[in-house]
Amino acid sequence: MNQDLDAAMRAWFLGPHAENAGLLERMVTEALRDHVFWRRNYHPEDGFTISEAEKRSDGYDAAVATLTQELLGLLAELKQGVPFFSGRYKGHMTYEQTIASQVGYFAAMLFNPNNVAIEGSPVTTRIELAVARQLAEMMGYQGDTSWGHLTSGGTVANLQSIWVARNLLYFPLAAYGAAGSLGVSLDVECPGGGTAPLRSLELCELLNITNTAVLDLRDRLWAAAEPADVRRALAEHSLQSQGYQEYHRRVAAKFTDPLPAGVVIVSATAHYSWEKIVRALGIGSNQLVYVPVDDHFRIDSGALWDTISSLHERKTPILACVTVNGTTEESAVDRLDEVVDVRRRAEAELGMAFHLHSDAAYGGYATAVTWAAEGARRRTGAEVRAETGLDWPSDAWMRSMEAQAQADSITVDPHKLGYIPYPAGAFLLKDKRARALVSIDPPYLTPADGTEDGDDLFLGKYIFEGSKPGAAAAAVWMSHKVLPLDQRGYGHLVARTVQGARLLYAALEDAEPAPFRVVLLPRPDINIVCYIVTHESIGTLAEINALNEGIYARMSLNTPGAHPEYIITRTRFLTPMYDGAVDPLLRALDVPVDDWKAADSDGLVVLRSTVMDPFLGAGAGADHASGLVGALFRAADAALADVHPGRAVPPNVHPGEAAG
Amino acid sequence: MNQDLDAAMRAWFLGPHAENAGLLERMVTEALRDHVFWRRNYHPEDGFTISEAEKRSDGYDAAVATLTQELLGLLAELKQGVPFFSGRYKGHMTYEQTIASQVGYFAAMLFNPNNVAIEGSPVTTRIELAVARQLAEMMGYQGDTSWGHLTSGGTVANLQSIWVARNLLYFPLAAYGAAGSLGVSLDVECPGGGTAPLRSLELCELLNITNTAVLDLRDRLWAAAEPADVRRALAEHSLQSQGYQEYHRRVAAKFTDPLPAGVVIVSATAHYSWEKIVRALGIGSNQLVYVPVDDHFRIDSGALWDTISSLHERKTPILACVTVNGTTEESAVDRLDEVVDVRRRAEAELGMAFHLHSDAAYGGYATAVTWAAEGARRRTGAEVRAETGLDWPSDAWMRSMEAQAQADSITVDPHKLGYIPYPAGAFLLKDKRARALVSIDPPYLTPADGTEDGDDLFLGKYIFEGSKPGAAAAAVWMSHKVLPLDQRGYGHLVARTVQGARLLYAALEDAEPAPFRVVLLPRPDINIVCYIVTHESIGTLAEINALNEGIYARMSLNTPGAHPEYIITRTRFLTPMYDGAVDPLLRALDVPVDDWKAADSDGLVVLRSTVMDPFLGAGAGADHASGLVGALFRAADAALADVHPGRAVPPNVHPGEAAG
Repeated sequence: MNQDLDAAMRAWFLGPHAENAGLLERMVTEALRDHVFWRRNYHPEDGFTISEAEKRSDGYDAAVATLTQELLGLLAELKQGVPFFSGRYKGHMTYEQTIASQVGYFAAMLFNPNNVAIEGSPVTTRIELAVARQLAEMMGYQGDTSWGHLTSGGTVANLQSIWVARNLLYFPLAAYGAAGSLGVSLDVECPGGGTAPLRSLELCELLNITNTAVLDLRDRLWAAAEPADVRRALAEHSLQSQGYQEYHRRVAAKFTDPLPAGVVIVSATAHYSWEKIVRALGIGSNQLVYVPVDDHFRIDSGALWDTISSLHERKTPILACVTVNGTTEESAVDRLDEVVDVRRRAEAELGMAFHLHSDAAYGGYATAVTWAAEGARRRTGAEVRAETGLDWPSDAWMRSMEAQAQADSITVDPHKLGYIPYPAGAFLLKDKRARALVSIDPPYLTPADGTEDGDDLFLGKYIFEGSKPGAAAAAVWMSHKVLPLDQRGYGHLVARTVQGARLLYAALEDAEPAPFRVVLLPRPDINIVCYIVTHESIGTLAEINALNEGIYARMSLNTPGAHPEYIITRTRFLTPMYDGAVDPLLRALDVPVDDWKAADSDGLVVLRSTVMDPFLGAGAGADHASGLVGALFRAADAALADVHPGRAVPPNVHPGEAAG
Repeated sequence: MNQDLDAAMRAWFLGPHAENAGLLERMVTEALRDHVFWRRNYHPEDGFTISEAEKRSDGYDAAVATLTQELLGLLAELKQGVPFFSGRYKGHMTYEQTIASQVGYFAAMLFNPNNVAIEGSPVTTRIELAVARQLAEMMGYQGDTSWGHLTSGGTVANLQSIWVARNLLYFPLAAYGAAGSLGVSLDVECPGGGTAPLRSLELCELLNITNTAVLDLRDRLWAAAEPADVRRALAEHSLQSQGYQEYHRRVAAKFTDPLPAGVVIVSATAHYSWEKIVRALGIGSNQLVYVPVDDHFRIDSGALWDTISSLHERKTPILACVTVNGTTEESAVDRLDEVVDVRRRAEAELGMAFHLHSDAAYGGYATAVTWAAEGARRRTGAEVRAETGLDWPSDAWMRSMEAQAQADSITVDPHKLGYIPYPAGAFLLKDKRARALVSIDPPYLTPADGTEDGDDLFLGKYIFEGSKPGAAAAAVWMSHKVLPLDQRGYGHLVARTVQGARLLYAALEDAEPAPFRVVLLPRPDINIVCYIVTHESIGTLAEINALNEGIYARMSLNTPGAHPEYIITRTRFLTPMYDGAVDPLLRALDVPVDDWKAADSDGLVVLRSTVMDPFLGAGAGADHASGLVGALFRAADAALADVHPGRAVPPNVHPGEAAG
């Protein structure tokens, strides 16, 4: 890979031993002093509010003493924290942040901008819209017709996707009622092709209009009567104003067939926040329909088709279908290209339409790999593989990433693979018009001019959250400037982490830890390596889980007093979500599938190492792949004693021990 | 007021002219270097990943050049920002942050902790729970039995209050079904007193159980059968799993009377986020029942009683009643003590029970005024008035603040009157047990030991959001250490801002701006001064609005190219929410109430100045009260020309001009 980019990468982070301490301190001091002198220059004729003489008072001095003492106390506490920055940390999806984002955050924080509205953030609101556009374009959206903004994280972004999707789903029904009240007639495009008068549609047809057709219908409705009348008529018929309880009653009265509960289809590996969201939004967790994943932990598109067909038979409307780009546990990338094909087929063959959301909270930034410098064009898989020297990414992976552009909305978290400080999630909409379906008009905070451009700058109108840090936008902006969203920046960074994950994978594969044995999940789609340790003396699922829990306890900071050499984490695969996908693992572990499916099953404990450290792949610094493997088997030795208490286990010498 | 505290206050902030630049720089540098040397000391045997020689490469140098150049660019952009720190800014509820919180944020940010789970934040999760407890105790909750956490802001905290409240409301119905499935019989306390078998209750009785009785019922249900069976039985009957659509169908089938749509009662001044929340949660904005406010913009408790009585007649369940502590527009503090009385009466006389939520996003920190040093005891109104030398706070205000302890949940935003960087909202629950009603079990992120204490430290289980900045918790923690939540810290700070607001109020009252005239809202409950300017030549509401919009445009950074001497903001009171409350203002403006209620009414434009600057009240620095008044009438002169184009208006000399 490009050596100049590796050299640049060394300037992107503070470094495992704070090698760039001088650089970061210079940047932070520059930002602070620049701010200080801005204040000095703002109406200097106002004089000083805090005089040098007053600073010599006892009260002032006591306050400074308290501040200093408490800071020392906090700094001492913080040292009990997790060394995310070290190559020895291979656990969750957390590393250190880019220097650019740290400095951007700090510099803007001093100004205290609130991105809820332009009035509180004339600079950072524009910056937020700019970075959202950069992200949208990276995902393949058109900059002019798409829209996005930052959120506190993936959960709020995912909430917005379902909020928007629900309003899109039910809009034709509201328009049906509103058009009736207004005495206007409207046509609408049907998913199978052709147009039909809105009034001629059955309930289940009204709930199966494509998003584009819904938004076109909305445009036509607003053009067909006075805005105030349309607003009133829509409010009379919309779920947003009626609420589910009243809405359901009315629809049941108007249409002979009752309104089936809308469902959200998700990949079985979907993040647990989806359950929170459907519960909070009143959709209900029973309406979360899990689609099985294949043994690469990607959504099974055949099973997706079967799911959709069966929903079609039951006339169940689909609120949204959620695919995952970078699962939290395995970094698996759903084959969105295949899902898009399934959707196309569902529209053509079944007349079914639905909102497609890509939860790319983790994997979104990996899309940077697909872009040539300046975002000028997509690269081919062969080009990328030639550069990385790896058998990654596959052509199928490239197609999955390019298919992101077909999703109606996307969640992508700068605070994950963007290496940006919390809080920085992002929500992106393919068709900007859809944001109007969740907009609101607060009495204050509207810009003076009231123009469309002014509206654009008043984020609080279109988003779920209110007050939000402009500093987060500045952090993302700075980071995108220093690390472009293409092969020169994030593309290089993410590729290096994939390479690091492959090195760790190979080290685990090559280990000869008999009488222990390592069962690995397939090579990850991005950079999370998952593995299970077993031992010749144990055979049941419960014992294997106990062993791996024991290893985890010895390689985690969670255990009181622990000083692990290396830090990993673990997850737990559960039935029925992982049914099928774990079969190869169970076979490799010699565990009967019945154990997995037993009523008292605790699932399968899987050890998990996220490789966000780009230096491992670049061959810079200590060989932490071998180091981790050595530490793993030392921990396994110790943990085995817990599984078989009283049985002495001879210590083994394992590969990589020297590096521990 | 205490001079030592004024002296301390001078050390709490960077200062309008960055008078404390040296202090802040020393703290930031200390935090940065402390972190740097922590990294150096973490496994020094690993060697250096980034060598000094490598730092001399072209690629590294180019990356540093980009970083430096882009930082300079960002710093130049940021100077277009809002001078919140200056005494000349008297607009929104934004000021600068405490030094303690800035340093705490920065120090912790370097460690990148994620407070979603203890594994990613062994230090800052504990800090978050500690600060939530401090806030809970300030609001009058018992530290041991209450619970809270930080959120991205007030909107998410408010969402959680309704999410919890809805699950509390419907829990008895789920328990009714679950107890039936499990074949157990349970008693429950009725709001009017006495207990009854759960099975004997009518639907409308099941929906009127007090929160404490609901949580006791829940404890009894879980004790009555095997946990796995209870879990399954509850899931079969809960709204969380069924979703509104299916739930409604089932309840309608089981009970002869249909389930009425639950409503959320809010003060007419409630924040616009409430509308977002009821829309997103599927409750519907029609179910948002506004209660009129009195001419001090506080909820009218008589009207509240009427509202509840009328809901009772229609057998409509109340999801929650939301009062406001510190309205966003006027800083009005609802008389929560009176609302608590109304609730007590509703329970006794009507058998109605409901969740009471206090939206103290803005006013929460003002509660610090009520506490003597060390939070040892509540002060009396007379004590506080003697200290402040003001006719503030009234005894009624003190009672409203003490009544916060009776709310079932509270939103309070450290990033508002806590002077802490965004994002820092907080959600507080009076009865910790209620959090279980929204909890979830994700497959990873659970602590190794699985104890109750471990559960406590896994925030992601009980909150809506996922990943969140541990740095925000550290910021709040540091600030509470330096500025205690009592008369020595935030109490003093808030009292000084109230004093500043009174000074501005008096300056507006005392101005003799004829032919202009100022109509003021009543003295604020906290520190937001609202006023309307009129002129002898204008008489209609539309002209008054135009004049005030013109003034705003000249005193806002929103207008391109504007360099206002002073910065204010404006809001718009709308019918029907403000009906009645604005009558005294309309009378003072000589505007017929009919104009206000006209169909094409744009409401009433009100100029608004939040005084978060504590130095004005302390008499430190320039006299920005007079300065603002002078600038206001100069802007009014100029704006009048817009209202009466072509008519020359002679310039007036206004008080305070010299200070402008």
